[in-house]
Amino acid sequence: MNNLDRLITQFERFPGIGSRQAKRFAFHLLTQDQQNINELAELIRTIKDTVVECPTCFRFHSVNGGGNLCRICRNQERDASEITIVERDVDIDAIERGGVYNGLYFVLGGTIPLLESSETKHIRGGALKARIENDTTNGLKEIILAFSINPDGENTARYVEILLKDHIEDNKLKVTHLGRGLSTGSELEYADPETIKNAFKNRD
Amino acid sequence: MNNLDRLITQFERFPGIGSRQAKRFAFHLLTQDQQNINELAELIRTIKDTVVECPTCFRFHSVNGGGNLCRICRNQERDASEITIVERDVDIDAIERGGVYNGLYFVLGGTIPLLESSETKHIRGGALKARIENDTTNGLKEIILAFSINPDGENTARYVEILLKDHIEDNKLKVTHLGRGLSTGSELEYADPETIKNAFKNRD
Amino acid sequence: MNNLDRLITQFERFPGIGSRQAKRFAFHLLTQDQQNINELAELIRTIKDTVVECPTCFRFHSVNGGGNLCRICRNQERDASEITIVERDVDIDAIERGGVYNGLYFVLGGTIPLLESSETKHIRGGALKARIENDTTNGLKEIILAFSINPDGENTARYVEILLKDHIEDNKLKVTHLGRGLSTGSELEYADPETIKNAFKNRD
Amino acid sequence: MNNLDRLITQFERFPGIGSRQAKRFAFHLLTQDQQNINELAELIRTIKDTVVECPTCFRFHSVNGGGNLCRICRNQERDASEITIVERDVDIDAIERGGVYNGLYFVLGGTIPLLESSETKHIRGGALKARIENDTTNGLKEIILAFSINPDGENTARYVEILLKDHIEDNKLKVTHLGRGLSTGSELEYADPETIKNAFKNRD
Repeated sequence: MNNLDRLITQFERFPGIGSRQAKRFAFHLLTQDQQNINELAELIRTIKDTVVECPTCFRFHSVNGGGNLCRICRNQERDASEITIVERDVDIDAIERGGVYNGLYFVLGGTIPLLESSETKHIRGGALKARIENDTTNGLKEIILAFSINPDGENTARYVEILLKDHIEDNKLKVTHLGRGLSTGSELEYADPETIKNAFKNRD
Repeated sequence: MNNLDRLITQFERFPGIGSRQAKRFAFHLLTQDQQNINELAELIRTIKDTVVECPTCFRFHSVNGGGNLCRICRNQERDASEITIVERDVDIDAIERGGVYNGLYFVLGGTIPLLESSETKHIRGGALKARIENDTTNGLKEIILAFSINPDGENTARYVEILLKDHIEDNKLKVTHLGRGLSTGSELEYADPETIKNAFKNRD
Repeated sequence: MNNLDRLITQFERFPGIGSRQAKRFAFHLLTQDQQNINELAELIRTIKDTVVECPTCFRFHSVNGGGNLCRICRNQERDASEITIVERDVDIDAIERGGVYNGLYFVLGGTIPLLESSETKHIRGGALKARIENDTTNGLKEIILAFSINPDGENTARYVEILLKDHIEDNKLKVTHLGRGLSTGSELEYADPETIKNAFKNRD
Repeated sequence: MNNLDRLITQFERFPGIGSRQAKRFAFHLLTQDQQNINELAELIRTIKDTVVECPTCFRFHSVNGGGNLCRICRNQERDASEITIVERDVDIDAIERGGVYNGLYFVLGGTIPLLESSETKHIRGGALKARIENDTTNGLKEIILAFSINPDGENTARYVEILLKDHIEDNKLKVTHLGRGLSTGSELEYADPETIKNAFKNRD
């Protein structure tokens, strides 16, 4: 395999990229200035030096002179009585765009697919348990489970509730789930019974 | 224009049907038994005799020996203190599938598109006002606006609120909107800020 | 089942129509004038009286005072030395829009799905054989097979060639298939090898 | 802008990649081993050293000890009497998959959009002219224009024909276009008149 094929193979490992688009990426690079190519290569080579995982919430963030803690975990204004558990980093961005949540976060690392009974390797179960125990001593009152509204997301919520069951009961922590109802763009005609049920329950 | 073209033109007026599919409908009929064709023609010819508009909620329903009132409006078990206003008949089916609402309904007849300032001809504004006034004397306490979560639906909600404003204030009626949040199948990553905001507000 | 449900069930049998759209068709009719509804019902009831199958090519056409033969079969200017065999009526419309073919047609009635070995009931195998034999005495020289370029279409072409094999050989008829190549909108990058092969073969 | 944002911006310049997917690429890299990241960075940095443009046909190819000429241009078995002009490198791959063409190629570098009258900077007009003149002395007989079947492709064909007009006439070169007809998967019902016309013309 020559270097062009090796590069195409690397691009094929990118999420959502097939062989045709991987090829197009390689040809795209061939038409770029060497200076621009060098910049991209260097950014890739050093990305793990400049972007680190926050040791508290496990989201990736740029090192910014303030140690390894991310911007949110470092922010003393955030409400330490609430923690939201999400699947992935991008979910935190979505929640922050909502502009109403001011608590802390924990990135679980993925979902537990419905058909798998055991914890998968990407899931940070142990770290979550340790984090919740630690935060409880700092005033944690509510754990918000913010997973996708689909079978995998619901299975993951069950997993977390079982994992933390004893600690939650012992410390009388509140566990909540994101509210369900009609999303922007929803038409009643196409809404499923569960969504309708919640839309009536949460009417205001 | 011959009869085949006339029939195709009729089918083209069916909601969501273009000329190609209208043609296919006509050819489909040509391959059917005459007996089956006769049954379809007769069902169409008499549909307005056997299906009538409920004089109270304005939904269509089959005449069923019980007078013109529909099954829901006739049901003494339904809670007359709540009325849900919907755009179209099919919305009532969706809500009934939800299985939690036990009040009454009113079919407005459509939405008020955002860019139109005045009431359109299909909208039953006058009938709604009369219905609400009448129901108030029968114990109505809450008006639930169940419109689509899009600009037209929101514009329609505003229209209804203005239309009923004085009566609502005079009689201290409660006006609610269907709860917003994550719908079945929603992924946080793609949720818009308004949906996220409501999902946090309605968490439970 | 009441009449409304019966009507919806009838619409669900229309090609490509699911239960939701069938329902919408019924509600659409309920909002129409009775006069318009009567016209539709009558057009449907009498469609098989005014639209007949051409006894020669088997396409449907409006009775037009000229007997049962369709406009094309009756046209003495059409070239009787060529016959194009198509799956369905709509294919004739597409070919006529092309504006270059001046021969005759035969509507086979469908395709022979790849996995079925025997003739299906809609396929007019016997009638095709009789037609070709008759046309041969009237100067037929070429049979053009105009089926879709997919497995079912190719299987249907094989079926016709086997069905007519002896007659074709005995009478030295020419059998052709529609030319393959790049269609309008085709991009080379996405063209399959078979299309590319034909595009080079048929270059001009 | 920090390095993570810089990397995301670089990925956003990749063909067909929006901001969400660019972000996902960056997060994907963060989960990879540093060794794998180093390999990708190095392949990108050196891609222009190991992949060069063939000086004759202008396609990109891996340097392979045989000088700068690509595998096809170097192959003495290829038929020098035919040259196919394509828009981009990937078109050559598609044609080679067809397995019937054994001539040479020239990569024009893009199309001339319909609304632009003048040659755009990526288009190798001068190089094409020089190549055709040189090949003519080596026995070139036919120029095959293999552009997409859409307005831009047709405009590009016109551009090339005008560019080479005098030379073609002086040397009596043949200019051909890829054959048009039904592509794999085509259904007659949806075929446009131009495609139908060519399908009948090229029937065989």
